[in-house]
Amino acid sequence: MYGEATSPGSEHPGGQMYDLIKELYPVCRSITGNGVRYTLERIAQRIPLTVHEVPSGTPVFDWAVPREWNIEDAYIVTPTGEKIAEFKANNLHVLNYSVPVHKKVMLDELRKHLFSLPAHPDWIPYRTSYYKENWGFCITHNQLESLPDGEYEVFIDSTLEPGHLTYGELFIPGKTDEEVLLSCHVCHPSLCNDNLSGIALTTQLADYLRGRRSRYSYRFLFIPGTIGSITWLALNEARASNIRHGFVVTCVGDGGPFTYKKSRRGTAEIDRAVLHVLRHSRQGFREVDFYPYGYDERQYCSPGFDLAVGSLSRSSHGQYPEYHTSADNLELVKPEYLAESLQTFTDVIDVLENNRTYLNLNPKCEPQLGKRGLYSNVGATAGSKLKEMALLWVLNLSDGQHDLLQIAERSGEPFAEIRDAARALQRCELLKELSPGSGA
Amino acid sequence: MYGEATSPGSEHPGGQMYDLIKELYPVCRSITGNGVRYTLERIAQRIPLTVHEVPSGTPVFDWAVPREWNIEDAYIVTPTGEKIAEFKANNLHVLNYSVPVHKKVMLDELRKHLFSLPAHPDWIPYRTSYYKENWGFCITHNQLESLPDGEYEVFIDSTLEPGHLTYGELFIPGKTDEEVLLSCHVCHPSLCNDNLSGIALTTQLADYLRGRRSRYSYRFLFIPGTIGSITWLALNEARASNIRHGFVVTCVGDGGPFTYKKSRRGTAEIDRAVLHVLRHSRQGFREVDFYPYGYDERQYCSPGFDLAVGSLSRSSHGQYPEYHTSADNLELVKPEYLAESLQTFTDVIDVLENNRTYLNLNPKCEPQLGKRGLYSNVGATAGSKLKEMALLWVLNLSDGQHDLLQIAERSGEPFAEIRDAARALQRCELLKELSPGSGA
Amino acid sequence: MYGEATSPGSEHPGGQMYDLIKELYPVCRSITGNGVRYTLERIAQRIPLTVHEVPSGTPVFDWAVPREWNIEDAYIVTPTGEKIAEFKANNLHVLNYSVPVHKKVMLDELRKHLFSLPAHPDWIPYRTSYYKENWGFCITHNQLESLPDGEYEVFIDSTLEPGHLTYGELFIPGKTDEEVLLSCHVCHPSLCNDNLSGIALTTQLADYLRGRRSRYSYRFLFIPGTIGSITWLALNEARASNIRHGFVVTCVGDGGPFTYKKSRRGTAEIDRAVLHVLRHSRQGFREVDFYPYGYDERQYCSPGFDLAVGSLSRSSHGQYPEYHTSADNLELVKPEYLAESLQTFTDVIDVLENNRTYLNLNPKCEPQLGKRGLYSNVGATAGSKLKEMALLWVLNLSDGQHDLLQIAERSGEPFAEIRDAARALQRCELLKELSPGSGA
Repeated sequence: MYGEATSPGSEHPGGQMYDLIKELYPVCRSITGNGVRYTLERIAQRIPLTVHEVPSGTPVFDWAVPREWNIEDAYIVTPTGEKIAEFKANNLHVLNYSVPVHKKVMLDELRKHLFSLPAHPDWIPYRTSYYKENWGFCITHNQLESLPDGEYEVFIDSTLEPGHLTYGELFIPGKTDEEVLLSCHVCHPSLCNDNLSGIALTTQLADYLRGRRSRYSYRFLFIPGTIGSITWLALNEARASNIRHGFVVTCVGDGGPFTYKKSRRGTAEIDRAVLHVLRHSRQGFREVDFYPYGYDERQYCSPGFDLAVGSLSRSSHGQYPEYHTSADNLELVKPEYLAESLQTFTDVIDVLENNRTYLNLNPKCEPQLGKRGLYSNVGATAGSKLKEMALLWVLNLSDGQHDLLQIAERSGEPFAEIRDAARALQRCELLKELSPGSGA
Repeated sequence: MYGEATSPGSEHPGGQMYDLIKELYPVCRSITGNGVRYTLERIAQRIPLTVHEVPSGTPVFDWAVPREWNIEDAYIVTPTGEKIAEFKANNLHVLNYSVPVHKKVMLDELRKHLFSLPAHPDWIPYRTSYYKENWGFCITHNQLESLPDGEYEVFIDSTLEPGHLTYGELFIPGKTDEEVLLSCHVCHPSLCNDNLSGIALTTQLADYLRGRRSRYSYRFLFIPGTIGSITWLALNEARASNIRHGFVVTCVGDGGPFTYKKSRRGTAEIDRAVLHVLRHSRQGFREVDFYPYGYDERQYCSPGFDLAVGSLSRSSHGQYPEYHTSADNLELVKPEYLAESLQTFTDVIDVLENNRTYLNLNPKCEPQLGKRGLYSNVGATAGSKLKEMALLWVLNLSDGQHDLLQIAERSGEPFAEIRDAARALQRCELLKELSPGSGA
Repeated sequence: MYGEATSPGSEHPGGQMYDLIKELYPVCRSITGNGVRYTLERIAQRIPLTVHEVPSGTPVFDWAVPREWNIEDAYIVTPTGEKIAEFKANNLHVLNYSVPVHKKVMLDELRKHLFSLPAHPDWIPYRTSYYKENWGFCITHNQLESLPDGEYEVFIDSTLEPGHLTYGELFIPGKTDEEVLLSCHVCHPSLCNDNLSGIALTTQLADYLRGRRSRYSYRFLFIPGTIGSITWLALNEARASNIRHGFVVTCVGDGGPFTYKKSRRGTAEIDRAVLHVLRHSRQGFREVDFYPYGYDERQYCSPGFDLAVGSLSRSSHGQYPEYHTSADNLELVKPEYLAESLQTFTDVIDVLENNRTYLNLNPKCEPQLGKRGLYSNVGATAGSKLKEMALLWVLNLSDGQHDLLQIAERSGEPFAEIRDAARALQRCELLKELSPGSGA
């Protein structure tokens, strides 16, 4: 059974995740197209991913699956014949979803199609235009400022044609049909923290969990942002009700403190589990109320679904300067941050897996713990004392109205201590697990 | 329909209100009598007020309408023949509701009938003795201290006889029978902030609202404090249940920060609406829990009625040094403060008028706002971004369980943004208004 | 009827309590045995205590009444012939419940049976071994450090044999069967604050209450810690449901600020009553959430009982350096602290006794207090104003949904003011007491 928070995956999960990021970094991904396909193929070498292809035009709630976008090359030739904004040098140079173009334009006209970041003049911004046909280039502000007047050649060798939306899915069945969802977006091109870090962590976690017997079933989605979650929900509407807990996994590779954006419900078990783990992490963290912006939690938490899905990240959506720029690169993310993030996710999963409601079978006064070897005698050490408190808390609150997470919250003890105490008491037949639905 | 928070009334509502205060300032009002009658006549020149006369002795719950008090003149003649405490110089000099007296008394005896303010030796206090027969004079403490021994002539030419209690009422019917009550007390003599400011603001607001079509009906009461609200409630007991929201309007002309004293219920819609407006005013304000003292909210919030009536003022009851003294004069109140207060009242009324519950007709995932022209594309500006958040919040929370005010509260967006977003979404048929009672 | 918080008991209750502590201080108590018997005999000279003897081996829930322990003498003879750790000098020298021993041991062996306090090298610790057979001595750390190598004679003249567990009980019937429980542990030997102070205060309070007619019945328990409350609950299981409010009385003689450890329920009437009294005491105090450790509240608040029992102490369990050492002596506790503690208990009991729910018989608008002599007229003084507020609060909130304690809490007025206001209003027939169960 899934259990203690041992270091998941290989001996060096941080290094493994970082290697995957490094490999996928150069690929130009978008919400559709071969970049996503290649990315999913690579992930499928690590975990038994099912790849789905949904035809363009497929209606998905209020939306339709868009045409597929692919790109071979792109650049600008300056009046002096210099080739700049080369797609092959950095795929951020192209406005994502640019329609094909090959023509000559004067600088004034070109400027309407150029995007830069005055505040960070050396960085290339990341911009998209999925639902309004347009073409454009993203360049450093320094370069933009130095462009001479004159005629420019702009060239984008892209296609925007009926095709497919591609996404990956892995379902690991557990003892029950109730699911934990882990969803990451795979649509961003050469950006490491957002969201190659999420892709790598989700892959590592899936690899870890498929080797274990779990209480919950686990569903992993590797999908393009927004349209991907809308597509999955539209095509799997009936399955959504099985999702008991969920995470959107993003921005988990940088060195910032953890940020937890709560589900729309705000006090769902996933919210309480994550916050419990973060509170006991002895590190600062940010707790953010749900707001209908950000990543795919917007869709999972739309009022027609209202799933218990939160978002656990480090520096989050729009909150770090490198966000959506060329500075979100291989130097921003680090193996040790990825490993720490993975540990936090597995700690939360440990809470979800082991959170049960027990009934104290000796509810009238305390049972005599000493005769069962559960109680220290003269001269308790600090360590054994703590355990004693966990035993006493579990006994006191196991009235059928409190699950172990609630006991951990009220007692201030870490969940693992409470879980171990409950197991010890159950072995002594002082505690009985309540079947779900019979208690709190 | 009543709507946006445009500046109500004339071009210079602050000046209009101030002019009314200036005109009514010299009048000696009390809980009955010709001062109130004259005041209501003047107001009736601005708005179609109905003036009610309730005979003395009429039983009103545990009380009876008192005898009517009128006064022509009053003064004291000192041993040296000097005339002091002249009613005609300042009507605060007479203990309000003094019985008639004309006699000679020694200083020791006179002192029992003199009231002054040692802490503000230049100010005349305002005192009353409605329910215990007495006579008296209010003078500055400096004057009190300088009175020589000897025999004084006291003269109060008043009458206290069966007559009437007079109050004014204006009912503006709206689309529904549910009422918003605005109640101000008209019993105070030459005191500007308390409560000529409330009288002037209530008049201005009534004049503004009678020119509009509103959702709610509006009831304006110009009544003597305590006995007036008791009388109205006793004579209109059945109508009280129509009052859905209400304000006691007082002390709205000085420069202090706003004070909101909540209704007894504490979390009524009126309480939430006022606090929402004040929180978004970018100014400091005071939020005060209900307590059974103050003005007529005491009666409206008595347990047998428990109406959702709060009190919105600036410096409040007893909280400013000039309170109930001759220093509450034409210099304490200013047109700009009155105008700002009026704006705050109309902002709150805008919330009440427009607070509805809507149902998101596309609750599963977000609708595609872009194809409806509701979404900015590349390069959103700060302004349009805000609106986007309002749209997303309204969609996310319009599950039938949240009204617009709750959405504004949870989102942190100003009500007007949320209201505009809801209207835009309704025009796109993404939102449907729930009829009252079918939702939250 | 029980009522105002007059100084309970004799003229010098602090001195009386201190005298009882001084008399009982030398006695060696334990969870069973003659020390407890002697202690209860002495208490029975003050109040009509019933002494119960429960045979060893009696099953009490998960436990059994232990064998009875008695001791006559104990000491150690050093290699140089010096007699140390003499029981007759200080009964803390013997590990409480030591089995008999008389033999010679080398220092190395002896050290395994010696307990000291390195942090307080001049103090003797208090240690017990009730449920694991052992023998031992408690000595100062200085003495431990100075012991020379060599052979020691150890002598403990104790018996551990089938006998009885002894406890004392006093039940004072009131107007109703509902009980207030006051429980103190009597098992500690020469330790003053923990818990001769609790014994003395409980005795004094019983003596005071038995001379009065009370609304509640009062049950006083003088029991050994843990096994005593388990025994009482096991033998009186059906009666436990009569306990409406309860206190564990301990550590009430030192000069520390009050500490209130709430019942497991957290918001029971006893919790609210104690915290109300402490908040109005104008002294700092500590409010502690329930935790399943400490004294007999652990048993009363076990989930099978979940009684509304809190613990009101000064310095509390384990929170002062002298705790469970020879420094918890006659100098640590003082008559004035005991008297102040007693006053706090009686203030809380006054709240419990007088907390009723009333119905305002004139709920529509305020009644006219003036005509009933309840209202000050011109020139209220601060004192009479306060009373006015209490009258208005009681009228406003006596809607059948608020008891007097809730009115005191919401108004911020001391309970005694609210109680007096309710009595005055009841005398005027403005208020009617609701029979329990008909209101809040």
